[in-house]
Amino acid sequence: MSLLVVGSVALDSVETPFGSNSDALGGSAVYFSYAASILHPVQVVGVVGSDFPQEPLDELAARSVDLSGVERREGESFRWKGKYSYDLQNRETLDTRLGVFADFEPRIPEAFRDAKLVFLGNIDPELQLAVLDQIHEPTLVACDTMNYWISSKRDTLLELMRRIDVLLVNDAEARELSGDWNVYRAARWIVDAGPRMVVIKQGGFGAVLYEGGRLFYIPAYPLDDVFDPTGAGDSFAGGFMGHLARTDDLSPDNLRRAMVYGSAMGSFAVERFSVQRFTEIGPAEVTARVREFSELVRFDIEPEHAHELG
Amino acid sequence: MSLLVVGSVALDSVETPFGSNSDALGGSAVYFSYAASILHPVQVVGVVGSDFPQEPLDELAARSVDLSGVERREGESFRWKGKYSYDLQNRETLDTRLGVFADFEPRIPEAFRDAKLVFLGNIDPELQLAVLDQIHEPTLVACDTMNYWISSKRDTLLELMRRIDVLLVNDAEARELSGDWNVYRAARWIVDAGPRMVVIKQGGFGAVLYEGGRLFYIPAYPLDDVFDPTGAGDSFAGGFMGHLARTDDLSPDNLRRAMVYGSAMGSFAVERFSVQRFTEIGPAEVTARVREFSELVRFDIEPEHAHELG
Repeated sequence: MSLLVVGSVALDSVETPFGSNSDALGGSAVYFSYAASILHPVQVVGVVGSDFPQEPLDELAARSVDLSGVERREGESFRWKGKYSYDLQNRETLDTRLGVFADFEPRIPEAFRDAKLVFLGNIDPELQLAVLDQIHEPTLVACDTMNYWISSKRDTLLELMRRIDVLLVNDAEARELSGDWNVYRAARWIVDAGPRMVVIKQGGFGAVLYEGGRLFYIPAYPLDDVFDPTGAGDSFAGGFMGHLARTDDLSPDNLRRAMVYGSAMGSFAVERFSVQRFTEIGPAEVTARVREFSELVRFDIEPEHAHELG
Repeated sequence: MSLLVVGSVALDSVETPFGSNSDALGGSAVYFSYAASILHPVQVVGVVGSDFPQEPLDELAARSVDLSGVERREGESFRWKGKYSYDLQNRETLDTRLGVFADFEPRIPEAFRDAKLVFLGNIDPELQLAVLDQIHEPTLVACDTMNYWISSKRDTLLELMRRIDVLLVNDAEARELSGDWNVYRAARWIVDAGPRMVVIKQGGFGAVLYEGGRLFYIPAYPLDDVFDPTGAGDSFAGGFMGHLARTDDLSPDNLRRAMVYGSAMGSFAVERFSVQRFTEIGPAEVTARVREFSELVRFDIEPEHAHELG
């Protein structure tokens, strides 16, 4: 199934306790594409400024990522600068320069309008709605958002939620959106508001899928060293949607598998700065990590014991 | 296999955002016993003061809990008073009165000295060592501790760790003990220091077992309402040890099942004040919850997909 992402293509400068980098490849559409393209070709819609280096775009294009929807416009590229706390649990935004992203009005190329799977990266919900108006008959639309839009454009976001199939948010966003501290009650609130399922990401503690009245929990991959948490959520989305696109199967069991691919891709993202880890791995490494998840949560309740007990 | 617990028998006064109680049954040995006794008989060693009400002890005794090792001494019983934050993530101790617990010197009755499974609740590691000197040939010794002992009696605790099989601690304790922020590295540090396995509890995010060089992860049961987190860790230990005692099986696969029983018992503990929830459930409710865990984490990676990918 064809897979489209609309989101940011950015230059990130990140400080972590382990080092820092400057003007490295970043943005939701970039992390998503790096992760998803290991599983399935990706079509990207976004915008870069006249100062954006061509080389990283060429590298992406060499990975079955179709960048014909990425417009290059006169002006500065979107730049984000952030600093993580010593334990990587919190981050502070030091600087955000929207540049050409400030006037981003996603135009979906004709060739992309038949996309069946669509991921709307974290942008203004008005723009996310405008994207949906340009897609003919998507099979499944997934969407990210952030606290800024939840507070400043709540009504638009609620309108958008009635038109999407999957909301992917972190626990803080789920709480702010629903007004409920409990993530399981928040999940039900979100599904009642429109999407037929919700993925709530909990950083180093894994992620929850609520779908069809059922919960599925996948832990985070146990990493000895988290190097740079930037992009983990978008890489999760890339693994999730990439798996669905590759398998052409939206059954509940396959949605659970998609969660495992999402968690695997999120774990790769944080092992190096920027998208570097994705340039070092291929399908074999992804398959190996997915199998490790099976072992990590594997247990069987022996029927005779359960019976004996009650 | 015979199961012995040594720990506190206390009267707790707890304030939560949902209400408060006063002088309710509490203490590590009590929570442990309530949880474990649903699965297997328990022997308890502890101490209460002359003011301790007899009725809750009689109720415990009616649940295949042998209290012949609980001494009643002249003086006040151990009382703890605490207050939880609005989100139940933090708690403040308002008052601790050790009473007769201050001079507790566990004396293991002759009839308990052949215990095969032993849980050393959170007390002074010198007393935990003194308990071990009185047990003839335990098959498996599990132990809890707390930050206070980690900082004030570190050497004694390290000596104890060389004599136990399982350390059960929460993530903050694992970090303080190992001096390592990463829980997976902390787990290896702990196993290198003596015990052949470690269970690291992460509150609402589940628990990790590190054993034989392998990690096993069990999520927390998804609860819509956590009422009172007091006793969750000791109830987890009760489920873990109670399952091992009942099944007489210390294989790696059965240790994983013990984690599921532990997580189930921890989730029951927090649904009501004090031990109340345990008085409302029996084996059937435990079995049902354990089966829900199977469904919560269930996924299968289709061999043909994995093969196709790499």
